[in-house]
Amino acid sequence: MATLSDITVSASINSLFAFLFLVAFAILRLQPMNDRVYFPKWYLKGIRENPSTSGPLVKHYVNLDVRMYLRLLNWIPAALKMPQLELIEHAGLDSAVYIRIYLLGLKIFVPIALLAFAVLLPVNYTGGSFSIMSLKMKDLTFGEIDKFSISNVPPASKRLAAHIIMAYVFTFWTCYILYKEYKIVTDMRLNFLASQKRRPDQFTVIVRNVPSDADESVSEHVEHFFRVNHPGQYLTHKVVYNANKLAKMVDKKKDLHNRLIYYTNKYERRPNKRPTTKTGFWGLWGKKIDAINYYTEEIDKLGKEEVAERERVIGDPEAVVPAAFVSFRSRWGAAVCAQTQQTRNPTRWLTDWAPEPRDVYWSNLAIPFVELNVRKLVMAVALFGLIFSFMIPITIVQTLANIESIEKVLPFLKPIVDKGSTKSFIQGFLPGMVLKIFLLVLPMILMEMSKIEGYVALSDLEAKSAAKFYFFLLVNVFLGSIVTGTALQQLKEFLNKSASEIPKTVGVSVPMKATFFITYIMVDGWAGIAAEVLRLFPLIMYHLKNIFLVKTDKDRDEAMDPGSLLWPITEPRLQLYFLLGLVYSTVTPILLPFIIIFFAFAYLIFRHQIINVYHQKYESAASFWPDVNRRILIGLIISQLSLLGLLSTKQAANSTPVLLVLPVLTFAFHKLCKNRFESAFRKFPLQDAMVKDTLERATEPQLNLKEYLKDAYTHPVFKGGEVELMDIDEVVDECHVVATKRSSRRSSLKGSQAGTSDGCPEDRTGIYAV
Amino acid sequence: MATLSDITVSASINSLFAFLFLVAFAILRLQPMNDRVYFPKWYLKGIRENPSTSGPLVKHYVNLDVRMYLRLLNWIPAALKMPQLELIEHAGLDSAVYIRIYLLGLKIFVPIALLAFAVLLPVNYTGGSFSIMSLKMKDLTFGEIDKFSISNVPPASKRLAAHIIMAYVFTFWTCYILYKEYKIVTDMRLNFLASQKRRPDQFTVIVRNVPSDADESVSEHVEHFFRVNHPGQYLTHKVVYNANKLAKMVDKKKDLHNRLIYYTNKYERRPNKRPTTKTGFWGLWGKKIDAINYYTEEIDKLGKEEVAERERVIGDPEAVVPAAFVSFRSRWGAAVCAQTQQTRNPTRWLTDWAPEPRDVYWSNLAIPFVELNVRKLVMAVALFGLIFSFMIPITIVQTLANIESIEKVLPFLKPIVDKGSTKSFIQGFLPGMVLKIFLLVLPMILMEMSKIEGYVALSDLEAKSAAKFYFFLLVNVFLGSIVTGTALQQLKEFLNKSASEIPKTVGVSVPMKATFFITYIMVDGWAGIAAEVLRLFPLIMYHLKNIFLVKTDKDRDEAMDPGSLLWPITEPRLQLYFLLGLVYSTVTPILLPFIIIFFAFAYLIFRHQIINVYHQKYESAASFWPDVNRRILIGLIISQLSLLGLLSTKQAANSTPVLLVLPVLTFAFHKLCKNRFESAFRKFPLQDAMVKDTLERATEPQLNLKEYLKDAYTHPVFKGGEVELMDIDEVVDECHVVATKRSSRRSSLKGSQAGTSDGCPEDRTGIYAV
Repeated sequence: MATLSDITVSASINSLFAFLFLVAFAILRLQPMNDRVYFPKWYLKGIRENPSTSGPLVKHYVNLDVRMYLRLLNWIPAALKMPQLELIEHAGLDSAVYIRIYLLGLKIFVPIALLAFAVLLPVNYTGGSFSIMSLKMKDLTFGEIDKFSISNVPPASKRLAAHIIMAYVFTFWTCYILYKEYKIVTDMRLNFLASQKRRPDQFTVIVRNVPSDADESVSEHVEHFFRVNHPGQYLTHKVVYNANKLAKMVDKKKDLHNRLIYYTNKYERRPNKRPTTKTGFWGLWGKKIDAINYYTEEIDKLGKEEVAERERVIGDPEAVVPAAFVSFRSRWGAAVCAQTQQTRNPTRWLTDWAPEPRDVYWSNLAIPFVELNVRKLVMAVALFGLIFSFMIPITIVQTLANIESIEKVLPFLKPIVDKGSTKSFIQGFLPGMVLKIFLLVLPMILMEMSKIEGYVALSDLEAKSAAKFYFFLLVNVFLGSIVTGTALQQLKEFLNKSASEIPKTVGVSVPMKATFFITYIMVDGWAGIAAEVLRLFPLIMYHLKNIFLVKTDKDRDEAMDPGSLLWPITEPRLQLYFLLGLVYSTVTPILLPFIIIFFAFAYLIFRHQIINVYHQKYESAASFWPDVNRRILIGLIISQLSLLGLLSTKQAANSTPVLLVLPVLTFAFHKLCKNRFESAFRKFPLQDAMVKDTLERATEPQLNLKEYLKDAYTHPVFKGGEVELMDIDEVVDECHVVATKRSSRRSSLKGSQAGTSDGCPEDRTGIYAV
Repeated sequence: MATLSDITVSASINSLFAFLFLVAFAILRLQPMNDRVYFPKWYLKGIRENPSTSGPLVKHYVNLDVRMYLRLLNWIPAALKMPQLELIEHAGLDSAVYIRIYLLGLKIFVPIALLAFAVLLPVNYTGGSFSIMSLKMKDLTFGEIDKFSISNVPPASKRLAAHIIMAYVFTFWTCYILYKEYKIVTDMRLNFLASQKRRPDQFTVIVRNVPSDADESVSEHVEHFFRVNHPGQYLTHKVVYNANKLAKMVDKKKDLHNRLIYYTNKYERRPNKRPTTKTGFWGLWGKKIDAINYYTEEIDKLGKEEVAERERVIGDPEAVVPAAFVSFRSRWGAAVCAQTQQTRNPTRWLTDWAPEPRDVYWSNLAIPFVELNVRKLVMAVALFGLIFSFMIPITIVQTLANIESIEKVLPFLKPIVDKGSTKSFIQGFLPGMVLKIFLLVLPMILMEMSKIEGYVALSDLEAKSAAKFYFFLLVNVFLGSIVTGTALQQLKEFLNKSASEIPKTVGVSVPMKATFFITYIMVDGWAGIAAEVLRLFPLIMYHLKNIFLVKTDKDRDEAMDPGSLLWPITEPRLQLYFLLGLVYSTVTPILLPFIIIFFAFAYLIFRHQIINVYHQKYESAASFWPDVNRRILIGLIISQLSLLGLLSTKQAANSTPVLLVLPVLTFAFHKLCKNRFESAFRKFPLQDAMVKDTLERATEPQLNLKEYLKDAYTHPVFKGGEVELMDIDEVVDECHVVATKRSSRRSSLKGSQAGTSDGCPEDRTGIYAV
């Protein structure tokens, strides 16, 4: 397949892209007009203000200070300077621990790479080269890169012992580093939790599947149950309303608002012409009407419907779902209730820690237990289908990657394709790019699937989406690239193979796919990460909003989109690099430097981003770490099995039992980690609860906890409601007196937006489009 | 390999054995002298008394009533008559649920067998017969039985669709029955727990890994910790002493006691000659001395040492291990403490339900958490080694099973072996028998391994031994028989195969091994179960004890060994039948009737045994059911994978994806069962605890719980201690006045034995020798 020169071309292209992105970033970030795109976190914290308004107007938009441009790279030391404790304080524990994953990659792979280069490269290179040819796959072509890989070692060679020993060394090293890191993260989490202030979720438990009772309402039933079964501890509770329809109305009104503002601004700029719109879909067809009047009426109508719906929800006992947030007098009481089983039927009165209020996904609170199980099963099947039907487009991409196949299928393309540079471009850049685009659509689908599964916290939804995405990447990007790529070349042979031969096939194909994955690392890792720092999409969106919707500084604050870490996308992708690194560490160690560059570069970029840009929606106190640890161990086991498969085809069957020990040990290590650390991420110990309770009772004996908890778990649509209803009228009035009272209007508009966007989860789905 | 006539011979031999055992049982059980061997449970319950002493002496020993012999089989309806509720009352829930496993086997396999005989047998038989010959294994011989198996269907035949459809039907049927049964057992357990009387373990929690404190003793530390963290609920606690040395002394003294009684009895019978013994090992060599004097002195000496040790243990703070039994004021308090995490370090202050006092395994309470993990890892590796080195003897057995191999290796044996009857005997009976003897030694080793792993309850120890034994049977009896048997025949080819080919190899070998497993079922299942009811070993032991140690009725009660279900041996063995039934249901359905006969026969026998014989040491309220359910599902998945492997060699590769769905669905079903039912077996719901507490407070307001719990969790060696010390002197006195005071002496001896055997766990290891 690809030769060394192909890789060189690919590396050049991707390095060039990465460099261009970085230069663009370095220049754009210095422009005052982009300040809110590249430093939104500081604005949100109130530390950064707009650039001073003195001086010529142009200075507001463009930086003319030449000296600044000479220090293009000074953001790098700035990103690395902030010490860890300050970083946790500034960006939250989630972000601070997240970037440690990149550091973890460096800690694992730098020593492994050094050892592999010192030992395995010489062993492979001097191994002779007749190798795989003996395996009846003579039509496959191998490039120079294979001289450095295990493919160069002849079958049944004594040299293979070196690879087995290294597999042991790498496994032990990886586990050692993982254990140390798990310990550090656990301590960070516990210290973080201990230092936290009072929060409603410390006292609150979420109860689901409250059984229906003929004589009592849900609210009464909940109160009686907990008064009886947690005597002395029960304080109060909050029933949950099914306000999904209302939330949709609020969303729709927000959208209509934006349109109204857009047309109002338009009219303001050209007061001689009333703007018009059409009644059809997206204003594209239908009757032409006056836009401002139309939207004003629509908002008015929707406003009335909303009031009616709001009253219906609050008044109708049918709108109460069989779930509640139950609060206790102490953290101890909540800890007890969250960790125990309430009744003999484990499908009823399910208690768990309440997510923090910002983290609640309200729409899912109404789903009954049996339905939950059915939903999970259906989604499991759907996920299975999705993952395995996704193979088809990936297969097409892989066909593109193989120039020879194209030439065979479409011989008339040969003159074009054969040109050296085109060939290298197609082989080096296209396959990675197409794959990347596929992967952009997917997380949204997976998030929707997780929502259907019925998790009630955003953090859970994200964790489950991440698990799905990881599974997807594992099957389609890793296994799919390896198996399908070969399959297309020898389709007929392959169809007759049974399922049990796959490990062997994977093992054999792994060294052949090294160049593909090197390309992938460069496109997805290098250029992709550089694109992340450039923030092209938020940059464009910000300026568009600035032109059409923004007038005051407050509006400008609204237009900022700091984004967040996008855990369900970035973490699984990141895991792919661990997987690739571990799999190729013994097979084709030449891939390791590419991975190390990725980890180092990404660490730098993401450290910069979490300091200056990202604004996390919630704080889970690094509750994702058990997932991270487990997935790296899955990668380790896959690497061991693929080496096993590879060696069994190298007439080294005696090595099989020796290598089979490794996955067993790795699994034992996983169990050890789970026993030792995981409970710190799942449970809340009674002693800590008691200490905090006692301390609080001593320092704030007068605290009215009931009052403090009163509105914590109220559905967001019931919180900002009244403010909004007033707003509409004000906006409507103003449309007729455009030239005057500018400032008062903006502030009231602001109020309405804040009311709906404040914690309402529906608009989080949008983040994946970024 | 074996032909139909071999199987007929084997069936005849084993049926004959089973029949002989049953006849022997039917006759022996009618003899009054054996009454305590065959009906010990009724004696323990105090319902059955010794046969009346009127009439001639011979009637005490032999039943001369001819009419009784005419109704030899009347124990069968008697065993089936007792209704379930009475059975639970009489034998405990564990036993009542245990025999339901056999019933479950019938419920699963009778419909499957009917369907398989109706559909698969005709499909196979009319399939043509060139089959496996095409698979390059022409030297293997197949018998007539293969005409009814899937081997008779030619590769790539459309007929294989019938097997795939049946695999689906069987899977759904099995899951349906399992779900129903899980629900029934769960209800039985909950009702049983709800109806239980007050027991110490309802109020008590076991705490392990109490951290050491420089200023406080363990006892103070425990008290302070729970007073602070469970205010209002903590009642009292009991520290645990490391009394392992003391327990050994008590055991040794008991042994010396028995010898003393033996010699006293001897002297009594022949008062003119003082019995002598030798000082060396087991009295076999060394100086000849007066036995009664010698053992009296030894007991005296040991008695003094014991007193000193007893004082040392109670006085020495070093003898207190960092564990305690903590009791609470209410069941609610205990339920809360058992289900929650106490401190942020999950390796300290580990709380869990206390086992019931009889169920505690005292020696393991002192092991620290880190050591526990190391022990578990070491034992996992040891188990792995044990299981895979056990392959070697099994391989030898399998060689025996193959007459042709013997003839090849040892041609001079040919004339002997070739005789029809010898051949059939060797093939039909020997291999199963040798395997059986191997398996008798193993459970003791596995029990010791579980003890080393450090579980603190006998029920846990048994559950873990069962898990190990199941794993062993799976690898060695099932996989070992299948793979090694073939391996010996084609050793050279096999060594070059890789690990990933094993599923395929298993699939191919499964139909070839049908006759071996039919033989195994007859030896282990039919004859083995019949031997169980005969109780040959307890019968002999009882009469030996009767001759040498027993004088009074009370002594005779002591000499009874009712035995128990031996969960860690019987359950995994039983699972093997489920596994075989499921694997062969689609492949060689002719095996199913043998399994159905086993289940029906075993149900009958074990129902009889739990009613009349077994005396369970503790009651776990069917807490083993999740294991039973899980293992049957493992068997189901193995059956699906082996069918997959088999079909993939039949050029039916298209079926692979269709069949791959089954294990996924089965695993989903396992998850569903776990979510829906398992918590009823692991946790104790707060509502139930509160109901019982409230009821008790209303009915017994004056209850002094602290007094009730005072001695519940005292180490057994501290309980009967004083009584024993007095006994010795009495026995010694009596030796000198042999002819008089007969009755008073016996009763005091009885006291001493009861004192040591009462709940002391060490003597449970002995049960495996039975």
